[in-house]
Amino acid sequence: MAPDRFSVGIDLGGSRLRGGLVSQDGQLVARVETRTEADRGVPGVLANLKRVIAQLLDSSDPSRVAGIGIAAAGQIHPATHAVVYAPNLNWKDVPLRDEIESAFGLPTYVDNDVRAAAWGEYRFGVGRGAKSLIAVFVGTGVGSGAVVNGMLLAGHDNAAGELGHTQVVMDGLPCLCGQSGCVEPYASGSGFVRRVEAALAQHVETSLAADIGGDPRRVTAALVERAAAAGDALARLLWTDAERYLGMALANYVTLLNPELLVLGGGIMLTSPSLADALAEQVARRATVMSRGVRVAVAALGDSAGIFGAADRVWLHL
Amino acid sequence: MAPDRFSVGIDLGGSRLRGGLVSQDGQLVARVETRTEADRGVPGVLANLKRVIAQLLDSSDPSRVAGIGIAAAGQIHPATHAVVYAPNLNWKDVPLRDEIESAFGLPTYVDNDVRAAAWGEYRFGVGRGAKSLIAVFVGTGVGSGAVVNGMLLAGHDNAAGELGHTQVVMDGLPCLCGQSGCVEPYASGSGFVRRVEAALAQHVETSLAADIGGDPRRVTAALVERAAAAGDALARLLWTDAERYLGMALANYVTLLNPELLVLGGGIMLTSPSLADALAEQVARRATVMSRGVRVAVAALGDSAGIFGAADRVWLHL
Repeated sequence: MAPDRFSVGIDLGGSRLRGGLVSQDGQLVARVETRTEADRGVPGVLANLKRVIAQLLDSSDPSRVAGIGIAAAGQIHPATHAVVYAPNLNWKDVPLRDEIESAFGLPTYVDNDVRAAAWGEYRFGVGRGAKSLIAVFVGTGVGSGAVVNGMLLAGHDNAAGELGHTQVVMDGLPCLCGQSGCVEPYASGSGFVRRVEAALAQHVETSLAADIGGDPRRVTAALVERAAAAGDALARLLWTDAERYLGMALANYVTLLNPELLVLGGGIMLTSPSLADALAEQVARRATVMSRGVRVAVAALGDSAGIFGAADRVWLHL
Repeated sequence: MAPDRFSVGIDLGGSRLRGGLVSQDGQLVARVETRTEADRGVPGVLANLKRVIAQLLDSSDPSRVAGIGIAAAGQIHPATHAVVYAPNLNWKDVPLRDEIESAFGLPTYVDNDVRAAAWGEYRFGVGRGAKSLIAVFVGTGVGSGAVVNGMLLAGHDNAAGELGHTQVVMDGLPCLCGQSGCVEPYASGSGFVRRVEAALAQHVETSLAADIGGDPRRVTAALVERAAAAGDALARLLWTDAERYLGMALANYVTLLNPELLVLGGGIMLTSPSLADALAEQVARRATVMSRGVRVAVAALGDSAGIFGAADRVWLHL
């Protein structure tokens, strides 16, 4: 039997930088995690990134590592694999592939982090064996990736899957993206923060005020869910809106793609596990008849999905 | 040069039955059109269908015809190519492929009519050369098909693309499908009929009442558009709703798939050509920033798109 071959998978997020050495058959044989330190600017983040990659390469026979895959939280140029724009990193037009290829002499590929995580779940997570899936990640924002017949839908501008910016309310709440009525203001960590902030500014009475010591930035989905369960009116409105508007957006996605599997992941799905059931019920009720039988499952790879996905994309690109 | 090879393409709709003989490179060399006569039941429609196919086969050297593709207005079983359910034909579980294969001894493939039309536009219409497209057809209902990297998205249950049954209003107008808030009640021929009917039942004053002689079934998109332009309040509400809710649904579709091209077709796009511009403007405004540069074009093949698409699918299946 031929010896295992490996690739490096990196998940470069706004706050955490995670890396792994992954065998071609999906075994994670080494893992490194550190802070991204986006506040140190491009050179600082690149230095951290190179240090993580060097550590991972040191953990194996270098001749058995085929390449480096990076999942980056931003918009990636489909041809050059530069990071066109990454608000969480505060990056614009950073030639990430070139930087890493010239530093390590290994073929390097950069994908969007959410789509890479979807690919990770498809290849080695809860989506293994599915012919088609949509994977949705709900955290500070809402993103997704879709796989159809073994193909990750990237989009013409490498921008497919922006579920958080589909509109669910005509002339609805303003979104950070500049539009209004998007999913994110109703159903995301940042959305909860902004809605509580607005409510407090209008002197709405809510038990959340005490939970957060008056600081809306401390609002979390878990706090909203708990206050809603305890009967707080504002929290109930926010939680119900999150369920039904995200549910409607998911149902529409399922109605358009008719996938075999819908994977639900992201930070909020971990801290509020009952949300998955509520969303599954919404999809079963709102998706078109022929598609509402979609299987719904919770993501399996946690915060390693991006590592797995990025590492595996190397074999596809090579 | 080898002599041309041909396939038969059939578009089997609720009212019209259209067929063509199409060369492998997309030349329509014969065309037949007749009434479907759905009221004659399955045997009557099958007799009409076989007569059309026989006529088309007679127009060529039979040895040069490779197969038969049928685009049918209904839900098609992905493996058996039976028509599972076709409300406009009043068909349930009709083994259409088996019927036609045994009658003509030629390999036969059945696709959904809207997805076949999308494929026709992609291969031989306005979508030629595009790497990815969404084609949306607006008429009595609203349907669509999407092509990504040369693959028609069919869905796990052969049910992808049901744009008309994505929801655009939470708890909105009831839809014939049993849900509420779908696109179709706001932006389709059948939707206009039902909204005018409801308005007349509530004695709403509208110039449309005279246009249609009091019979809501005579409402058309062209009438609504004209009355709206002349200042009729009901017609303006209906037309504006159609533009903005269909526009929102299209923008969401574009935000999810990030296609190169958005094709707009169907009966209403022919009778109300200005609608395409209004929808393009809605998409440019509502789709996420990275995707709103999508090119928008009007379908080129008219009511032959299904024929072209069905005929061409034969070569893919063979």
